[in-house]
Amino acid sequence: MFLPRKILEEKLRSMLAEDLGEGDITTALIVPAGATAEAEVICKEHGVAAGIEEAAVLLESLGLKVQALCKDGDETRVNHVMMRISGDARTILSVERTVLNLLSRMSGIATATRQLVRRILKAKLKTKVACTRKTAPGLLYFDKKAVLVGGGDTHRLHLDDMILIKDNHIAVAGSLQDAVRNAKERASFSKKIEVEVTRVADAPRAAEAGADLIMLDNFSPKQIEGAIKALEKAGFFGKVLLEASGGITAENLIEFASKNIDIVSLGEVTDSARALDINMRVTKVLAK
Amino acid sequence: MFLPRKILEEKLRSMLAEDLGEGDITTALIVPAGATAEAEVICKEHGVAAGIEEAAVLLESLGLKVQALCKDGDETRVNHVMMRISGDARTILSVERTVLNLLSRMSGIATATRQLVRRILKAKLKTKVACTRKTAPGLLYFDKKAVLVGGGDTHRLHLDDMILIKDNHIAVAGSLQDAVRNAKERASFSKKIEVEVTRVADAPRAAEAGADLIMLDNFSPKQIEGAIKALEKAGFFGKVLLEASGGITAENLIEFASKNIDIVSLGEVTDSARALDINMRVTKVLAK
Amino acid sequence: MFLPRKILEEKLRSMLAEDLGEGDITTALIVPAGATAEAEVICKEHGVAAGIEEAAVLLESLGLKVQALCKDGDETRVNHVMMRISGDARTILSVERTVLNLLSRMSGIATATRQLVRRILKAKLKTKVACTRKTAPGLLYFDKKAVLVGGGDTHRLHLDDMILIKDNHIAVAGSLQDAVRNAKERASFSKKIEVEVTRVADAPRAAEAGADLIMLDNFSPKQIEGAIKALEKAGFFGKVLLEASGGITAENLIEFASKNIDIVSLGEVTDSARALDINMRVTKVLAK
Amino acid sequence: MFLPRKILEEKLRSMLAEDLGEGDITTALIVPAGATAEAEVICKEHGVAAGIEEAAVLLESLGLKVQALCKDGDETRVNHVMMRISGDARTILSVERTVLNLLSRMSGIATATRQLVRRILKAKLKTKVACTRKTAPGLLYFDKKAVLVGGGDTHRLHLDDMILIKDNHIAVAGSLQDAVRNAKERASFSKKIEVEVTRVADAPRAAEAGADLIMLDNFSPKQIEGAIKALEKAGFFGKVLLEASGGITAENLIEFASKNIDIVSLGEVTDSARALDINMRVTKVLAK
Amino acid sequence: MFLPRKILEEKLRSMLAEDLGEGDITTALIVPAGATAEAEVICKEHGVAAGIEEAAVLLESLGLKVQALCKDGDETRVNHVMMRISGDARTILSVERTVLNLLSRMSGIATATRQLVRRILKAKLKTKVACTRKTAPGLLYFDKKAVLVGGGDTHRLHLDDMILIKDNHIAVAGSLQDAVRNAKERASFSKKIEVEVTRVADAPRAAEAGADLIMLDNFSPKQIEGAIKALEKAGFFGKVLLEASGGITAENLIEFASKNIDIVSLGEVTDSARALDINMRVTKVLAK
Amino acid sequence: MFLPRKILEEKLRSMLAEDLGEGDITTALIVPAGATAEAEVICKEHGVAAGIEEAAVLLESLGLKVQALCKDGDETRVNHVMMRISGDARTILSVERTVLNLLSRMSGIATATRQLVRRILKAKLKTKVACTRKTAPGLLYFDKKAVLVGGGDTHRLHLDDMILIKDNHIAVAGSLQDAVRNAKERASFSKKIEVEVTRVADAPRAAEAGADLIMLDNFSPKQIEGAIKALEKAGFFGKVLLEASGGITAENLIEFASKNIDIVSLGEVTDSARALDINMRVTKVLAK
Repeated sequence: MFLPRKILEEKLRSMLAEDLGEGDITTALIVPAGATAEAEVICKEHGVAAGIEEAAVLLESLGLKVQALCKDGDETRVNHVMMRISGDARTILSVERTVLNLLSRMSGIATATRQLVRRILKAKLKTKVACTRKTAPGLLYFDKKAVLVGGGDTHRLHLDDMILIKDNHIAVAGSLQDAVRNAKERASFSKKIEVEVTRVADAPRAAEAGADLIMLDNFSPKQIEGAIKALEKAGFFGKVLLEASGGITAENLIEFASKNIDIVSLGEVTDSARALDINMRVTKVLAK
Repeated sequence: MFLPRKILEEKLRSMLAEDLGEGDITTALIVPAGATAEAEVICKEHGVAAGIEEAAVLLESLGLKVQALCKDGDETRVNHVMMRISGDARTILSVERTVLNLLSRMSGIATATRQLVRRILKAKLKTKVACTRKTAPGLLYFDKKAVLVGGGDTHRLHLDDMILIKDNHIAVAGSLQDAVRNAKERASFSKKIEVEVTRVADAPRAAEAGADLIMLDNFSPKQIEGAIKALEKAGFFGKVLLEASGGITAENLIEFASKNIDIVSLGEVTDSARALDINMRVTKVLAK
Repeated sequence: MFLPRKILEEKLRSMLAEDLGEGDITTALIVPAGATAEAEVICKEHGVAAGIEEAAVLLESLGLKVQALCKDGDETRVNHVMMRISGDARTILSVERTVLNLLSRMSGIATATRQLVRRILKAKLKTKVACTRKTAPGLLYFDKKAVLVGGGDTHRLHLDDMILIKDNHIAVAGSLQDAVRNAKERASFSKKIEVEVTRVADAPRAAEAGADLIMLDNFSPKQIEGAIKALEKAGFFGKVLLEASGGITAENLIEFASKNIDIVSLGEVTDSARALDINMRVTKVLAK
Repeated sequence: MFLPRKILEEKLRSMLAEDLGEGDITTALIVPAGATAEAEVICKEHGVAAGIEEAAVLLESLGLKVQALCKDGDETRVNHVMMRISGDARTILSVERTVLNLLSRMSGIATATRQLVRRILKAKLKTKVACTRKTAPGLLYFDKKAVLVGGGDTHRLHLDDMILIKDNHIAVAGSLQDAVRNAKERASFSKKIEVEVTRVADAPRAAEAGADLIMLDNFSPKQIEGAIKALEKAGFFGKVLLEASGGITAENLIEFASKNIDIVSLGEVTDSARALDINMRVTKVLAK
Repeated sequence: MFLPRKILEEKLRSMLAEDLGEGDITTALIVPAGATAEAEVICKEHGVAAGIEEAAVLLESLGLKVQALCKDGDETRVNHVMMRISGDARTILSVERTVLNLLSRMSGIATATRQLVRRILKAKLKTKVACTRKTAPGLLYFDKKAVLVGGGDTHRLHLDDMILIKDNHIAVAGSLQDAVRNAKERASFSKKIEVEVTRVADAPRAAEAGADLIMLDNFSPKQIEGAIKALEKAGFFGKVLLEASGGITAENLIEFASKNIDIVSLGEVTDSARALDINMRVTKVLAK
Repeated sequence: MFLPRKILEEKLRSMLAEDLGEGDITTALIVPAGATAEAEVICKEHGVAAGIEEAAVLLESLGLKVQALCKDGDETRVNHVMMRISGDARTILSVERTVLNLLSRMSGIATATRQLVRRILKAKLKTKVACTRKTAPGLLYFDKKAVLVGGGDTHRLHLDDMILIKDNHIAVAGSLQDAVRNAKERASFSKKIEVEVTRVADAPRAAEAGADLIMLDNFSPKQIEGAIKALEKAGFFGKVLLEASGGITAENLIEFASKNIDIVSLGEVTDSARALDINMRVTKVLAK
């Protein structure tokens, strides 16, 4: 997910513009034009830093100098100075909240993701931890990027990405197998095809119809075992990737992940992650 | 925060456009053009509904019919059918995730807010529960609206709203009193002035300098008592509004709120609220 | 109203883009690529300079060098050289009209505002001169900023700013007092509440219902006296701010302003101000 | 300048969006959702109506019903009801100011233009009254359209329109004749070429070099006579169009216009026109 | 590539807006406001219709009525009436060129694609004909959609789609195998990986390193045979998809396609397709 | 068609943004952050370079260094190195396709135009070769600019440019002469008026009614002769410009152009031009 800096700048500045309205009236009243300042961005708790690159791009695009003291993916300590910023004092104060909102959301998502990835590694599993499309509207790039920084998989980015045939599609198509065969035949060669199944018996059907991946939706660990056996019996185990999704939490993660599952996916890393506590402190001021 | 429907539509459709990319390829492959469907939006857990109005505006703007079975601010039960949708099947499936992301985020924020407001009411207090500017970038309107639906106060909307002199402004200005006096003298008559104080002794100084509101930042309940005594002594108690902010959680809320405090504010209702679990189910399909 | 330069740049460049269409064909035909030039922006009449900062931001964002010879708020003389510009000749000629339109509109508004402010000061009054929301669509920031430069008050910036209950709101609500009480109870603590009254008797009612400000709409100086007496009698004089609005002109300003009025507001400073006569002259040309 | 309604709608709604910010908080507090209202737009003074079509497009695009009681170009009387509006009360109140700002600016420009056109007609002249590119940034379409409604000529719309070689172009090119010849040779056949001349002797030179139009810039009536004589002598009179520009006012208009001049142009009709006094009154309210 | 109609409308109207500039001045002068008309869109040559859906969406979004007489993918005959349009005459004339430009470009691309697809079918092959990312900037959706309509494969839509490791990536990475292994290990499970190879010997290396697809870039038919043999020998034939790209034309298509190749891709269907000759004729006019 | 570089940048970056989607995932996986590279843009065939300036503006705006080895309008040879680029390797690879699409389209259009212009010059004629409004939607500026670079005439840029009364306008207006007279009387003095005629007898009628230009639409060379005779007879030959349009190809160009025709116009130079074959090659890589 590489975006040239200038492209990223525009997305980031639109965030700032939303917060500014017709301009920062407090700063205009209190801070003399031309004053310069230095400030530190400080993480108040343990977690995983994310958004450092994006914050730097936004700040530098406004003419500020940035010294990053950690990089995306680093673990943060309590009172960790993440970055030093210097330049026009009015600009620093006006952009403060936008930068902190970005850093604390992205770091919160990366922290939540990393905790899950750690459990997988500790259990010596290779299962990938993936997010879903449950991102905040407008923040798709930033939410998915934070998952990547935390060590997770971004899953589908858009509806024009991998084909994912879900329960509602099957409800409309009438039959899982027809839906998959239809997609297989007419889809671009460049796309994988994943099918969401809700019953054990549908897993081998999906594989037979040509799915590259099968999403076991809201399966209990026991049902997952059943699905794997059914796939083995039908000769498809190992030929399709298996994703477990629904009802998975940090607590039960390993139960799901240990079942020969290639991917576990959770909406909560993007739609319910707690923001990491990060703030900014002006450390020095120079009048013009 | 009334926005005419057509203005709101444009914000909402840009959310959908982000998710669509170059179009929903799964739906295009599986669902015949011209097929119609009916679907239900179902809440899977107890909470407070928010975003019903916004979801309806988005769906109707795409030509779908919507029957809302609850309204913003209503409490939801497990398996509560929130809305029924009918119309073009491809459109319903393409907009599903965007509508659910909006509803589950807004309802999550309203639910978190309502829980706090309830505690205040149960304690027979009049303290307002306010959010902060810690909104998701680009979602300011929706996050603040969800707080309102939950019974909270939106606090400042933008940096061009109420003047709020924070620690970093004072660091640049040199002196709290100079900062407030300067603002008082030059600010528009249409704006209130709030000052963030970090020490008990600064509360009467802020009031004397002309603040309309004083934010007691990271004060313990004991310090809050001290500040109130100092304000009483200086003759300003009751003449300024008092806001407690920082370190407040659902658990300790009443300790803070009971101290003659007019407003308690918490970032977590917007930046760390858990999404409410809401999904969509196609209930009927009609081929063209 | 502080906007970081990069945010302002984008607003300003969209003004230029409107004028350019598919590009400046005259300049492309006449001026060789790579030629450089120097030019002066000259004010042809007495007035107040405004837009100097905005013009500099636009010009510099296009890669031109700018030497400002006056600053926002300075008085201009006939044939006053306001700024010197140097750089790419094609760029200078293409941006000429946009820069002049901006400077002459903003300076015209600042000049009209300053004339009123002067009268107030000469009369040794403290009444604030405010503009209204009668700005040119799309130019809200620039029109309000020009009023500030002229020494006026920006009044409400948007409909999401201070609550202002006008005649039409009361017509819908049915009763002034209900409208104010309703707003008082449910509005954010961060907002002031102003009420427009059209009869003397309504002034104390508005104050009693909780208004922070009262707008005396189309009151004659005599009616204003009446309203003040009524407020005194009811014990509210000095506790609410009073704004006179409607029918006020440069000529009768002092009649209105001398009546213990805190604010006088006039739409004409933004919607009917005469543009200041400012032009540009190329002073030197260097072929590539 | 015909724009399909849907294209115009988008321009108009962006004006409204600027004024709304995060939404109309007064209306949200005072006016119940679902209430409907009727309102009248009333002109308070004599003038020329313009913007009726644009106002109707904006209002109707928001779902309101509009009955226009006058059309663009009609003369208005004191207390003239220009349009009746009915529909959602919140929407009517939120759009009030934007609609009035548009109508009063456009009607002000049309009124100023019509006054000039009338003098020309009364003097039984055929000279066209044209505006210039001195429009408010972002309002080019609306300012030029209002001039048309008033009976004026829109002159160049953009820098990609007619070629207009001005003093600064000539300063860069070195010679008027070289500039014109160069343009004549290389310009698209679809464009006219106009040249601004500042001395009588330059008029025949411009014509000889191939100009289609000659702008006599800041010429006195006497100098204009001189230029016409020089053109007659050189055999170009009647073969080029003549535009007088600079220093022309309503008062001296006829002096300039009577001199065989095809066009007189004035910046003031767009950059200094007084807004026409127009307001809105709610006449009826229906609760839901 | 399903886009809800309202999303598509906005893309389409921005095309119209570009052509309109400040409005259609010819139509405004010639066609009375309120006149209605009927018109036919006529194809002047044999080809494949594409853009019918998009044209209808644009026309209907402007309030016109559309009767489509053919559908996307249909073959057109000389003087084939493709659609009938009725409604506001000014709107029909203003949108004419934009609609025709869209239809003739999309139909041209579909026609060129269908010709290739036909040759493949006639040769009883199953090779897919794919386009590339050589689309006109801004027209990605429309160019790719036209390829689909013609029976081709859209290949990658964006740089965030399938991973495609090209010569320049390998030049930077140093080694084809390292590049593929690196991608295989770290890429999202949702993405396929394709590798461009320029030498026969690289084909089995790419397959061994984990590629899902191999693009044989600028291979002669003989080299393609060599690559297939090398893949057979290494045991990868049939396990990876093979794409031939570079130097393929309508003439030599079958030579390439017959070589066990899954996909042939050509830039020319999108970047060099001849526009289909389509025009519009007003058939009936009704004054208001 | 001069656009200041910053204005052009924004148009160009939006092209890049379309191709990037959520970012270049291949480059992110393969190319280390911070690596730098050098690359060459190479033309693989004979043609006319266009888009060199635009490509340089885009590349430089992304922070890359560009050395242009040819300029717009130069002829290219096989394997001609057109530009050298150096800088951030990820950025170079991400922008590669967008730059090449721009260069190959613009150079293709310039090449096609130049071939026609050459034939005219070889025949010692002065007829201008013009394009039409048959540009790719969204690419008007770039298509027209490429025609200019190739030596052609841009014709009308927008519908707000020259008045061009076509068959469908006349169908609505009822009569050619009424349409022209109406336009002549009411159009801005700044616009030329062109009329499309479809019969020989209409040419003198158009001239008589006041047309500045006459477009002979789908006239055979013989009909063109007839039209010229009719104009001579009526005394208008030499007083109006004549444009031949419709059915003109590279092959029959001279037949049309030799007939005293001022302009020949062809849609195919913009809507059917073959892209010039241009690619990019990384020549050097430096790890960070």
